[in-house]
This record gives sequence, structure tokens and C-alpha cells, in this order.
Amino acid sequence: MPKNIKVSMIMLQSLDGFIAKYQNDRLDWGSKQDKQNYKAKTVEIGAIICGTNTYLQIPDFALKGRKVYVLTSRPEELPTKDEVTLFKGTPQELIAKIQQDGLTKVAVVGGGRIYNSFLASKLVDDIFITIAPVAFGTGVHGFGQNQLDTKLELVSVDKMGDNELYVHYKVLN
Amino acid sequence: MPKNIKVSMIMLQSLDGFIAKYQNDRLDWGSKQDKQNYKAKTVEIGAIICGTNTYLQIPDFALKGRKVYVLTSRPEELPTKDEVTLFKGTPQELIAKIQQDGLTKVAVVGGGRIYNSFLASKLVDDIFITIAPVAFGTGVHGFGQNQLDTKLELVSVDKMGDNELYVHYKVLN
Repeated sequence: MPKNIKVSMIMLQSLDGFIAKYQNDRLDWGSKQDKQNYKAKTVEIGAIICGTNTYLQIPDFALKGRKVYVLTSRPEELPTKDEVTLFKGTPQELIAKIQQDGLTKVAVVGGGRIYNSFLASKLVDDIFITIAPVAFGTGVHGFGQNQLDTKLELVSVDKMGDNELYVHYKVLN
Repeated sequence: MPKNIKVSMIMLQSLDGFIAKYQNDRLDWGSKQDKQNYKAKTVEIGAIICGTNTYLQIPDFALKGRKVYVLTSRPEELPTKDEVTLFKGTPQELIAKIQQDGLTKVAVVGGGRIYNSFLASKLVDDIFITIAPVAFGTGVHGFGQNQLDTKLELVSVDKMGDNELYVHYKVLN
């Protein structure tokens, strides 16, 4: 099936590429403005894709108003919720399923392994990344830990709250 | 001794925080403009600090016109060159030595362990970082791999050649 759905990655990372200092990090190093932008952007897009850990950590209010697709190897172990689809398969199969559901856009919201597998599968069209003014040295890698060769085109850069950068890239697949 | 020398970190990294895809990476993913800026900036500052691997990899023409301080645990094994000081000790001791040499500014130019140890030692005043429009997933971590808690203030952001961002941060120690 040809891909005719727009896939956007949305990410908050430290300057050195970490999306969390440790598992279950509450991300208090991200600004209020970034959280508001995340909400507005994902509600506007209407649907999100996330992995198991992100699904288990994300509060219910951050799922509401959006269709949620969880890409997971263990759907039978996860809680079911309204508007949540637990999906076992490849990124390509999940995108095909979302197209069959009639959607034309979806946001990939993490974690690192999910971002990595969608990039490696050449399924991502653009990236909206907030770069927080912190460096951790260690933590959870936003782009995962498998080798990538992702090339990007800079679309725009803006300042966001609390010394953050908000950068929009197009993915050159 | 009170620190009265300005220490600037200069770095080229991928969006996901790597300064090299592998050891001896030729960094051909960085733009010509970034190389020109690196040269202009380090010549203007007049002195650079680097680690053993960076010293062994950097071509001679990229050292010329600058005093070079190599922070190394094995000075006896390294080639000596004009204007190059091979120094064994802590980052603090090296900064004290450079002040004694009469300098008022110096640039830290890598690699990852050197950047990390100068940040961890709270010796860095500001960071000039070029973010290339690439993601590697794996590679040499620019900020090293020891835990940091570095907080930054965004001073400016500009576009550089080939879809790069050039960001100036002040380090809030």
C-alpha cells in the first residue's frame, strides 16, 4: 500500500540528545510552553503513536482528544482504554492500519526505540523537536541506540519558553 | 587561584548529540561554513584545549596560529610540536597553567571526554555549538558519557550552511 499519511515526530530532548534522565523522569526540565505546544500539536493532528513505556507513563489527560496507537510486543499485558489501539507488528503494518482507519496524519511521540524504528523504516516525514537548555551526559537516547543515517532539511527554528529551541525539520528519506 | 580566563566550548554535533559516527570519522557531514567558523573563532581566541585523540586526529593546519594545550594522561607517548603543550593533570590545573601563561581566553575543542570533564569541573563559560541536520543513533557522545547537570542560557541561534544551526549558550554553573 502506498503511504499517503503524514507522519510527524514530536520530541523534547536535552542538548545532548536525551529524552529522559532516567526511566520515569517527570520531564520537569521541559517548559510549560513546550507542554502546551505538545498538546495543541497532537490534538490538531488527532492521533499519536507511542511505545509501551511511554503509554504506561503518560497521564490519561495527555491522551484525551487524540486517537492513540501503542506499538507493543505485549498487548495482552497492557491496560485497554477508550480510543486506544494496542498493536503488535512492524511500524509499516501499524501505519497501514492507521491509513485503513481513515486517518491522514499521525504524530510519533516516543520513546527512543519507537522514534528510532520509525526513522529506520523511512516512515517519518517531519520532526518537531524542542531542544532544552540542559545537558545530562547520560540518560534515555531520544533517537534510540540503533544506527541511523537520517538526513534532515531545516525548515524553521524558533525560541520557545525558558531558553528552549523549537526546530522543525523535514526528513530527507 | 581565582579563574579569570574565559573558557569557551566549540563543538559540532549531530542532532542526536554525536561528534563522530566512529573513531577517525572525517566529519564530512559538517559544512564548509562550520569549518571556516571554527578556524576564525579559534584563531581569534588564540588558544585551544583538546584531548589525546583529538590531538592525534587534527591536521597540522588546524593547529597553526593557535597555542595548543593537550590534556593527556600519556604525554610521553605523544608527538611534540611547536606551540603545543602536552599537559598531564586535572582540568583545573590546566586552566591555572594557561592563566600563568598569561592568556585570558581559551577554546575547548574536544573530544567528548574533554568536554565532559570541563563541564563537570564547572570551568566552561559558554558553548558555541553547531547542530548538523543528521541523526546517527550511535557514535561518539559529544558531552561524554559521565553524568552532568549542566544548565544553559540561550544567547543566540542562527542558521549556518547546509541546514545547520549555530547556537550560542552561556553556561549557568
